[in-house]
Amino acid sequence: MKHREPGGAHELLFTQRVPTGDSVPRDVCDHCGFIHYDNPKIVVGSVVTHGEKFLMCRRAIEPRKGFWTLPAGFMEHGETTEEGARREAREEANADIRIRDLLAVYNIPRIAQVQLMYRAELASPEFSSGPESLEVALFDWEDIPWDQLAFPSVHWALRQFRSVMDQAVIAPFANPEGEFGNVLPPK
Amino acid sequence: MKHREPGGAHELLFTQRVPTGDSVPRDVCDHCGFIHYDNPKIVVGSVVTHGEKFLMCRRAIEPRKGFWTLPAGFMEHGETTEEGARREAREEANADIRIRDLLAVYNIPRIAQVQLMYRAELASPEFSSGPESLEVALFDWEDIPWDQLAFPSVHWALRQFRSVMDQAVIAPFANPEGEFGNVLPPK
Repeated sequence: MKHREPGGAHELLFTQRVPTGDSVPRDVCDHCGFIHYDNPKIVVGSVVTHGEKFLMCRRAIEPRKGFWTLPAGFMEHGETTEEGARREAREEANADIRIRDLLAVYNIPRIAQVQLMYRAELASPEFSSGPESLEVALFDWEDIPWDQLAFPSVHWALRQFRSVMDQAVIAPFANPEGEFGNVLPPK
Repeated sequence: MKHREPGGAHELLFTQRVPTGDSVPRDVCDHCGFIHYDNPKIVVGSVVTHGEKFLMCRRAIEPRKGFWTLPAGFMEHGETTEEGARREAREEANADIRIRDLLAVYNIPRIAQVQLMYRAELASPEFSSGPESLEVALFDWEDIPWDQLAFPSVHWALRQFRSVMDQAVIAPFANPEGEFGNVLPPK
């Protein structure tokens, strides 16, 4: 926050009003004028392949604990989107990945997320479970646990990746037509 | 914020600590446990063409008031990235645009911004200054006011757009090599 004193806490008293030069109401602090812009959050992740296989992580944390996902998570301050995607692969799968290009930009307005998903490959064939994963594994396409995927965008990214596997240059995908991330697609 | 009562203000008392299951310190409210995740913000915008010409806006607001920019701004809740880019063209240039594809994903870590810039064209040849613009104009490439561009990423987007003008399918650009958005490129 903007007004932290060294070592100290601070109080913010928010009321909703339209800041000067803005067009929509924001939470503004009555004491100091601090404006809380609650903008959408960025998720960065990747479809990571090794030969013909796909790297997936079984979640050790909520939401969707026990279900399978791709290495992905919230982008942090001070990193780029690609650095964020590499960090997530390190944290969740102890994997070192090489990013190739941008596979997709997904919008999930309900939870105010923009997800940037990259095409990537394992830089070396080592991986293991990070603290947020119960297990990490490489799957052949037909062995992917489609019934136990954590999120709609995991489906989207895998299927879209597969549809352009032989294309060197791709325009990034968006959400599949009519999909907003609220329901898991059928197997 | 999460804990607003109907019509009322609320107080948050923040101290920095690492929330359960997290790995970095966050501002957490001592009273209610609200966590302020200060994640990077998303800017959405576009290079808008009409025939051979480029639509640009002269800024009526700080920062860089009086300088020329592309229609772009912070993404809001409840919209997709493409909807945001269209809204910004409407707000800043009273222009209705048709988005073609994603031109670039720029990272400006110093100010914690991720910028998604699209290729777009005017859906109809009408435009005028919105409240955030002093003037709005269509420029031939050689007449673009290179000395008076507002931000480094305006340079990047225009030049990268121009380099792929004849290509139907493109992989989005990133920042030019070694550029972090801290200085304006030479003309």
